[in-house]
Amino acid sequence: MSSFSPPVQRLVTELGKLPGIGGRTAQRLAFHLLRADKEEALALAEAIREVKERIGLCEICFNLADGPRCRICADERRDPAAVCVVEEPSDIIPIERTHEFHGRYHVLGGALSPIDGVDPEDLRIAELLTRVDGTHQPALDANEGQAEGIREVVLATNPTTTGEATALHIAEQLRARAPEVTVTRLASGLPVGADLEYADELTLGRAFAGRRRLS
Amino acid sequence: MSSFSPPVQRLVTELGKLPGIGGRTAQRLAFHLLRADKEEALALAEAIREVKERIGLCEICFNLADGPRCRICADERRDPAAVCVVEEPSDIIPIERTHEFHGRYHVLGGALSPIDGVDPEDLRIAELLTRVDGTHQPALDANEGQAEGIREVVLATNPTTTGEATALHIAEQLRARAPEVTVTRLASGLPVGADLEYADELTLGRAFAGRRRLS
Repeated sequence: MSSFSPPVQRLVTELGKLPGIGGRTAQRLAFHLLRADKEEALALAEAIREVKERIGLCEICFNLADGPRCRICADERRDPAAVCVVEEPSDIIPIERTHEFHGRYHVLGGALSPIDGVDPEDLRIAELLTRVDGTHQPALDANEGQAEGIREVVLATNPTTTGEATALHIAEQLRARAPEVTVTRLASGLPVGADLEYADELTLGRAFAGRRRLS
Repeated sequence: MSSFSPPVQRLVTELGKLPGIGGRTAQRLAFHLLRADKEEALALAEAIREVKERIGLCEICFNLADGPRCRICADERRDPAAVCVVEEPSDIIPIERTHEFHGRYHVLGGALSPIDGVDPEDLRIAELLTRVDGTHQPALDANEGQAEGIREVVLATNPTTTGEATALHIAEQLRARAPEVTVTRLASGLPVGADLEYADELTLGRAFAGRRRLS
């Protein structure tokens, strides 16, 4: 018999569904919320409700957005001619933090993984191709009356098996359909501050293959 | 500039207020909730709201309760003559899991810690003494017309400096006020499965001091 009353048990169960939150942690978080000020706990409940009710996907890039467009696509200082393709909306944050990229994004919604049943049709690859073609969705054309004029597509899927496969697949599609567009891939190599002695062979191999001429 | 829209930022901030949830984890949880089914996310929001609206404190023992009494105090099979004193409601769960204690609880709401400004008046010590005196709060007397008839108080505060100080303080108060009541303290010693070689000296010292005669 659980010594929790049903509402407490429900809260523990719901918290336990979050990724990386096991049973013990869920209990600890539940007891924190029970002890916390009512306002503080309800602010969290409200924040969850708000994102589920107000946050949708950007009509251009499928990033998270609280209106028809995300903050990046709505920002006129961003260069619409460069598009960085990522797997998930959360991948945009670390890229933005670098301040190296000033274009727009395209969120695929995952990576190709035949084993898990993720095929090209399950990702937003067709939408990327139409963006590049300049035959963007009617809603946008009606609003803007113009295409984005994409000249570079940076493939920033993860440097994993599935991410690499996705990048290769998209690169092939783009080569066939829009040969004038430059397609690039993020460099793979040793992370800054790494120690060669402890580098794994795959990463070190990539670092060799991608070595740059200094003089 | 944050590339989050305000509702997402609010959710990350609120999640980050939970204990043990840092900025990165808060972001990861927020993105999980954004990706999750609307029903699943709202179930969490609703569970939080429900506990804050429905859960109060048991009128007898100050455990969490979804009515006037907690499930333990409301259970007639529990022995009202034995009371186990704990710091927090969350301490009740591991004790219940042992199936060793069949009495009721008393939740102090913390432990004495003059450094943090926690004095005896800040804990529910006076309430414990009145329970033991049998002069329980009028609401209960009116309902039941009887006291609990407490014969044993088990002090189950944590084996920490503050927990020990709290246990000693309560033991003194009880000795002065209800000398006929047996006051016990949970045994301290080596945890089951421990290795003597790695035991810390305080625990080992306690294990010696509390050694039991076998034959």
